[in-house]
Amino acid sequence: MGAPPAGRPGEATALGCTVVAMGSGVGFSVVGIEHPHVFELVEGLLTAGAHEVGHAGDDGPLMELYEQWRADSPRLDVPAALGHDAADLVVVAGVPAERAGHAAAALRAGKHVLSDKPGVTTLEQLDDVVDAERSSGRRWWVLFSERFGNRAVSEAVRRARAGTIGRVVDVVGLGPHSLLADQRPDWFWDPATSGGILADLATHQIDQFCAIADPADTAVVELISSSVGNVSCPDRPTMQDVGRVMLAANGVVGTHRVDYLTAAGLGSWGDCRLMITGTAGTLEVRANVDPAGADGGEHLIQVDADGTHRIDVAGVELDWAARLLADIRAGTDTLMTAAHVHRVCRLAVTAQTRARPWPR
Amino acid sequence: MGAPPAGRPGEATALGCTVVAMGSGVGFSVVGIEHPHVFELVEGLLTAGAHEVGHAGDDGPLMELYEQWRADSPRLDVPAALGHDAADLVVVAGVPAERAGHAAAALRAGKHVLSDKPGVTTLEQLDDVVDAERSSGRRWWVLFSERFGNRAVSEAVRRARAGTIGRVVDVVGLGPHSLLADQRPDWFWDPATSGGILADLATHQIDQFCAIADPADTAVVELISSSVGNVSCPDRPTMQDVGRVMLAANGVVGTHRVDYLTAAGLGSWGDCRLMITGTAGTLEVRANVDPAGADGGEHLIQVDADGTHRIDVAGVELDWAARLLADIRAGTDTLMTAAHVHRVCRLAVTAQTRARPWPR
Repeated sequence: MGAPPAGRPGEATALGCTVVAMGSGVGFSVVGIEHPHVFELVEGLLTAGAHEVGHAGDDGPLMELYEQWRADSPRLDVPAALGHDAADLVVVAGVPAERAGHAAAALRAGKHVLSDKPGVTTLEQLDDVVDAERSSGRRWWVLFSERFGNRAVSEAVRRARAGTIGRVVDVVGLGPHSLLADQRPDWFWDPATSGGILADLATHQIDQFCAIADPADTAVVELISSSVGNVSCPDRPTMQDVGRVMLAANGVVGTHRVDYLTAAGLGSWGDCRLMITGTAGTLEVRANVDPAGADGGEHLIQVDADGTHRIDVAGVELDWAARLLADIRAGTDTLMTAAHVHRVCRLAVTAQTRARPWPR
Repeated sequence: MGAPPAGRPGEATALGCTVVAMGSGVGFSVVGIEHPHVFELVEGLLTAGAHEVGHAGDDGPLMELYEQWRADSPRLDVPAALGHDAADLVVVAGVPAERAGHAAAALRAGKHVLSDKPGVTTLEQLDDVVDAERSSGRRWWVLFSERFGNRAVSEAVRRARAGTIGRVVDVVGLGPHSLLADQRPDWFWDPATSGGILADLATHQIDQFCAIADPADTAVVELISSSVGNVSCPDRPTMQDVGRVMLAANGVVGTHRVDYLTAAGLGSWGDCRLMITGTAGTLEVRANVDPAGADGGEHLIQVDADGTHRIDVAGVELDWAARLLADIRAGTDTLMTAAHVHRVCRLAVTAQTRARPWPR
């Protein structure tokens, strides 16, 4: 869980004029202030030049923080936020199990939707959102922030797709998180409201696998196996704090683990890893931290015939919001395809539904 | 494939007198000089004070290298090496598919056996060796050198067993190797002689998983899935250059990949990794190399409630040979149990036999 950004996104920056001019004309409302990701979503949109027309959600510490940060944004009720005349886009970041309902209502009201992940928690919800998307002609994006918000992951995926390490054969994705038990709302502990650990957290790893193994979104992705367990929360019997999912597509096997077991001493919310093996080399991402190693985050290491290279990703642009706004204005498809969003969500929910108990 | 050691093992060292005195009385012969591991096995035994009574094997570049290194060792025929009066132990390092036959013959001749891995390539071979072991009262060890020859792996396993990171939940083991196509003998390319990539390479990762998840050798280890493929050797149709095996025991899931895809620029024969997740922290081993990171090998990183720690493993003793010789002399069981050796070999061969094709 990240802290809200320190500055006031949308205020003047070195690129302020250009960015605002590019993004001007796109208004958004926010429905649900239930996960700190909402700060990342809103900050991205504001920085890219969109403007907020209002927000809706329940009272709580996160809402308090949000309203301190976005003091000029009017508080609305949910129907008003979903159907606001000045909103082209609705940002959805409520309780996970309620997001699909908000997204489908917004789509049917003629709005585009940007959802925090998980975008849906059941296959029925997914079918409903996709139906609303198709019948409305509007778009539903789920932001897989572990890729779109991390320069090393973004660049690793780009290089893998470009054939930099030959034909990709294997992907290992690890997404450990901190439990932070005392900071979690009630919905977090129950898969009926959170979606479960695979439908929620593993969407990131499934997104990365699909983006690497099948950028054209045309192959069949096989769900080989999945499992979930509760190994550290005996007083929360419904909690899932560990999960695994194995996928295959286009000759690439992907093995992914997510958990809430990150030790307090790590100094980051998690030690996310992405290890891509190709026929001509490897790409390794230490996304957040290199424990007891190099400082900072976003570490990308490439091994190829020429040697081992620490890739400087400082120049990689995190431009998801600018691309999203461009797609909204021009009807283009530069951020990610609808097929990709649908597939990742379907795989995550299916992996969750079919998950076997963690072995005892 | 390591080079033969530079010095003359068994010659005087700082600890020479003690070591020789402890190990004196154990003579060994060598049958099969088909993999550079034989140098590691023999060097370990000599350094621990055993003495070589002779060696047998086919002509070839490796035999030439061996006879330059061990100029005082008499060349024997195989029956003479297996039944040498002065040998208490036979070191087996021939063509993998022939090792079990040599091991069983040696056991039935009243010798102990130290085998390079893979010790067996079929379940029938395993049954025969175990039968010979039981009827003779002698012992058959397979040296899983990625653990017993690496201080970081040894120490990680010790810490995991000691509860340093709480209850272990998950293990990821990666064992990539260099293909080195122009240095490989004919038997390497055919699973009928090599055993296949899982029966051969993955024994290391299976050894590590079992040693971590079930040190008592009492649990049932479940083979969840396995697969093998050929992704880089189109002109060698029988070759397997990538494989995966997933295991579970005692609430621990283990996911393991082995391959021959290491890029030439790595500067090591492979980038072996071991990542252990517990309820109270993680242990991460970069066994051979930390690509584009810290120098050297044997990197062990522990994350716990107190912080991230790079563990200095310089003081960890690689004492497999001393323990083996002590076990031979005293009939003790300090190196590893017979049950462990049998289980690892059975799992590896079973994973190999049941492997599905790598997804296309």
